Amino acid sequence: MDMEKVNSMDFGEFVDVFGNVVERCPLIAAAVWSQRPFSNSEDLEKHFFAFIDALPQSGQEGILRCHPDLAGRELQQGTLTAESRREQGGAGLMSLDAAERLRLAELNAQYRARFGFPFVLAARLSDRAAVPGELARRLQRPPAEELRTALGEVKKIGRLRLADLLGAAGLAGP
Amino acid sequence: MDMEKVNSMDFGEFVDVFGNVVERCPLIAAAVWSQRPFSNSEDLEKHFFAFIDALPQSGQEGILRCHPDLAGRELQQGTLTAESRREQGGAGLMSLDAAERLRLAELNAQYRARFGFPFVLAARLSDRAAVPGELARRLQRPPAEELRTALGEVKKIGRLRLADLLGAAGLAGP
Repeated sequence: MDMEKVNSMDFGEFVDVFGNVVERCPLIAAAVWSQRPFSNSEDLEKHFFAFIDALPQSGQEGILRCHPDLAGRELQQGTLTAESRREQGGAGLMSLDAAERLRLAELNAQYRARFGFPFVLAARLSDRAAVPGELARRLQRPPAEELRTALGEVKKIGRLRLADLLGAAGLAGP
Repeated sequence: MDMEKVNSMDFGEFVDVFGNVVERCPLIAAAVWSQRPFSNSEDLEKHFFAFIDALPQSGQEGILRCHPDLAGRELQQGTLTAESRREQGGAGLMSLDAAERLRLAELNAQYRARFGFPFVLAARLSDRAAVPGELARRLQRPPAEELRTALGEVKKIGRLRLADLLGAAGLAGP
């Protein structure tokens, strides 16, 4: 998909295509459409990130709260978004044994209780062996620092999802 | 549902229950959870509305762009949210004849082209006979004024959805 195609989309098409660049937050893609035309994929990404950065803290926490747990209830129930399913599956989180699942469930619950949002990690840049240790490590951090880290993961996820949608043509720029 | 129950919800439960108070914007409910405890339903509503009002214009337009057309493609395809289906059905918009559907489709398209967001109306406070005239009237208005009017409709819809969820107990206050 090249940027000429992206810039020609009406808002309905744009939200259909980019609505899950930020997990379960089509509002953000719908807002970013106001900033068209985009000169290249970095420019498009910049507007997604700027919207996130400009939100009040409650809105940034709200974005995180729209994310599923890793290897959590939504994975078990089959209600993940297509993107999350692919990402968690790719990291091996669909083939945990019972002890691994229990360990992650306990850590996820502790994390949610401590920070008031779920543990968010760009699963495609990690794997099942690394996740529990990373979760345990981040569980120890000060809340304000952890909010910034978690939003950084949201951006890594968004960058990878945008690259999937735009492919090499989008990345080549004008 | 009383406010004690609402205030005891973790963010997952809260987003499950209130995630569609603003159509397809669970991010907003997820952000509002940060403001708990809520003293009564007016207080809860106030936080939803304050979040909308504090967004940049692109974000406010983004909210509108997450709404379906009235009697549009999503109604035909059966992809409306449960709340929208009930509201549009209650206003008689599921039983339009072919000429009425065509007229509305044309007006919706003109409105989207003019303002860059869909025509949003609290359908429960209107009916199929009134909708085309109201749409034609709002189509003539200056964009800045129409954005304010459309956000006012989002709030009317949200107020009615909150009242459905909270019932008399929530409205009674603390």
